[in-house]
Amino acid sequence: VRRRYVAVVGPGDGASGTECAHAADVGRLLAENGVVVLTGGLGGVMAAAAGACESAGGIAVALLPGRTREGAPDVSSVVLPTGLGQMRNALLVGAADAVIAVGGSWGTLSEIALARRIGIPVVCLGAWAVTDADGSPVELTTVHTPAAAVQAALAGRMDE
Amino acid sequence: VRRRYVAVVGPGDGASGTECAHAADVGRLLAENGVVVLTGGLGGVMAAAAGACESAGGIAVALLPGRTREGAPDVSSVVLPTGLGQMRNALLVGAADAVIAVGGSWGTLSEIALARRIGIPVVCLGAWAVTDADGSPVELTTVHTPAAAVQAALAGRMDE
Amino acid sequence: VRRRYVAVVGPGDGASGTECAHAADVGRLLAENGVVVLTGGLGGVMAAAAGACESAGGIAVALLPGRTREGAPDVSSVVLPTGLGQMRNALLVGAADAVIAVGGSWGTLSEIALARRIGIPVVCLGAWAVTDADGSPVELTTVHTPAAAVQAALAGRMDE
Amino acid sequence: VRRRYVAVVGPGDGASGTECAHAADVGRLLAENGVVVLTGGLGGVMAAAAGACESAGGIAVALLPGRTREGAPDVSSVVLPTGLGQMRNALLVGAADAVIAVGGSWGTLSEIALARRIGIPVVCLGAWAVTDADGSPVELTTVHTPAAAVQAALAGRMDE
Repeated sequence: VRRRYVAVVGPGDGASGTECAHAADVGRLLAENGVVVLTGGLGGVMAAAAGACESAGGIAVALLPGRTREGAPDVSSVVLPTGLGQMRNALLVGAADAVIAVGGSWGTLSEIALARRIGIPVVCLGAWAVTDADGSPVELTTVHTPAAAVQAALAGRMDE
Repeated sequence: VRRRYVAVVGPGDGASGTECAHAADVGRLLAENGVVVLTGGLGGVMAAAAGACESAGGIAVALLPGRTREGAPDVSSVVLPTGLGQMRNALLVGAADAVIAVGGSWGTLSEIALARRIGIPVVCLGAWAVTDADGSPVELTTVHTPAAAVQAALAGRMDE
Repeated sequence: VRRRYVAVVGPGDGASGTECAHAADVGRLLAENGVVVLTGGLGGVMAAAAGACESAGGIAVALLPGRTREGAPDVSSVVLPTGLGQMRNALLVGAADAVIAVGGSWGTLSEIALARRIGIPVVCLGAWAVTDADGSPVELTTVHTPAAAVQAALAGRMDE
Repeated sequence: VRRRYVAVVGPGDGASGTECAHAADVGRLLAENGVVVLTGGLGGVMAAAAGACESAGGIAVALLPGRTREGAPDVSSVVLPTGLGQMRNALLVGAADAVIAVGGSWGTLSEIALARRIGIPVVCLGAWAVTDADGSPVELTTVHTPAAAVQAALAGRMDE
C-alpha cells in the first residue's frame, strides 16, 4: 500500500515547551491518519513529533545529519544517519508529500524554503515569516493549531 | 530499542533467478532476526530482499536514486526518494551496520567498495571479485548460501 | 596561495535588471579582490555575477543542480554539474567563506538560511527579510550597494 | 569556451612513488591539452595530478570529502570542501567527461564502478581488476603509460 509521508521540521534543543507540545500533537495526529512521519532525527520538535507518532502506533523515520546514530534520541522506528550535514534538509523535504514547520530557526527556515523551491506544500505553525525587499509578506500557509496543520498538510497542494 | 540495519545490494532488473532467490532468503532471514533491511529500492535483488523481509513481518526501507516514488516496486514499508542518483549508494551503505552483496554489477561493486572504504563490513554471495594490479586477489568475505551471508553480516566486523 | 571564496546567490531567470546589475558589480569587485566567485550556475543573478567576474579576470565556479552542463550559461571558468538538485544549495554555501545574496526567491532564501545554520557569514542586498513568530525581525546583515556587500563579505564573520 | 573535464582518481597517502609519478605525468598532459583536472583533493595520486596540472599552467579543481579546507594539500586552483564524505566520489566522476584511475584502493574502485554505472568512460593505469562470479574478467580499458591514459580519456566513450 502506498503510504503518505509528512516531514515535521522545527528547532532541536532550542525548541520551546509549546513548540514541543504542538509537535507531539502533530506527530500523533499524523500517525492516527496512517501517515509516515519524517524528521531530522535530533531533539526538540523532531523528537517530540517522532516519539508521539511512535506512541500512537505510527512509523517515524529519522534522517540524521551525521554519519552515525550516536547521540540521536531513540524514538523513531527507523533511524538513518545520512552524513549529509545540512544537505539532509533537502533530502528530508524532498522525500515528503508535505511539510509541517513547528517553530522557527535557521535550519527550519531552510527546510521551508527548500520545500517551496521544489514544490512541496508547506504549512507553518508558529514558524518564521518572510517579507520581500519591499516589506510585503511572502505567502506561506499559516495555521494556529496542530489539528489545522495536519488537516492542511493532508489536504494537498496548499501553496499553489 | 536500538535496531540493527543491513543493506542488501545487488543488480536490479538484470538480476538472475538465482540471485533473486538468494536475495529473498537473505531478506527473510534478516527479518526473522529483527534486522531492518535497507535497499536501493529498485527491482531485481533489491525488490526480492525487501519483499521477503516485509512478508516475514520485518521492516524494509527503500532508498531510491530518483526524486519521486513513481515506478518503484511497492514492496517496502518505507520508501524514500533521495534525488541523489548514484550518490545514494554511499548513503545506503553508510546507514548500514553491514552490507550483503548478492550478485554483481557496477552499481553493486560501487556499494561494496564504498562500504569497504568507510569501514562497513561486507559479505559477498555471488558477487564480483577484485584483484590488484599484480593479479593478487583483494580480500573480500565470500559465502555460498544466504544463511551464511546473514550469519556473517550479524557476526560483525568481518573485514578487519 | 590560499584563495578566498564568496558565493553569490540570487534568483535565476526571474531576476530583475537591477538585481542583475548589482550582481555584475559584485562579481567584478570580488574578482578585483582576488576572490573566487561561486554560483549555482544558472541564469539571472548567477550568470551576471559569474560573467562579470570572468570579464574582470577572476575565477568563477558554477555548481549546477543538474547532472549535465547542457543548457547552462557558458560564463564560468569551471562548470560542475552536481546532480544534487536543490541539495547543491548547501554544497554551494558550505564551500564559501561568505555569501552575498542579491534579490529574493525561495532558492535564495534557502541558501541564506543554510549558510546561517552552518555559520557562514551572509550579507543581503535586496534580499527577503525574515521575522519571527512574534513579528520581530530576525537579524540579517543588509546593505544597499554592491560595494558595501563586497566590503562586508570580505570583512569576515559579520553575523556573529 | 566549453572545456573538457577529466577526473584523476587513485590512492591518497598510501600511493606508491610510481603511482604518483604516473599521476603527475597524467596531470601535466591533461593541462597541456587544455583539460580541467578534477581530483578528490587529498594527497598521493590526487595531489600529484593536481600539482603537475597547475605547474603546467592548467586548472585543477579539488573536491574534498570534508567540510573545510583544513589540512588539504595547497596545490589546486580551486578547492571545494563538499562535506559529502565518500559521496563526493560520485560527485567527482559525475562532473567528469572521463576518468583516469591510477593505482588501486577501495575509494578508487568505488570511483571506477560509479563512473561505469553512470556511463562515464574510465581508463585504468595500474588499477585493480574485476572478475565476475565465474572468474571471467569484467571489461575495463587498461593502459600502461600516462600518455596512453590521456589519449584514451580524450578519445571519448571508450567503454561502450
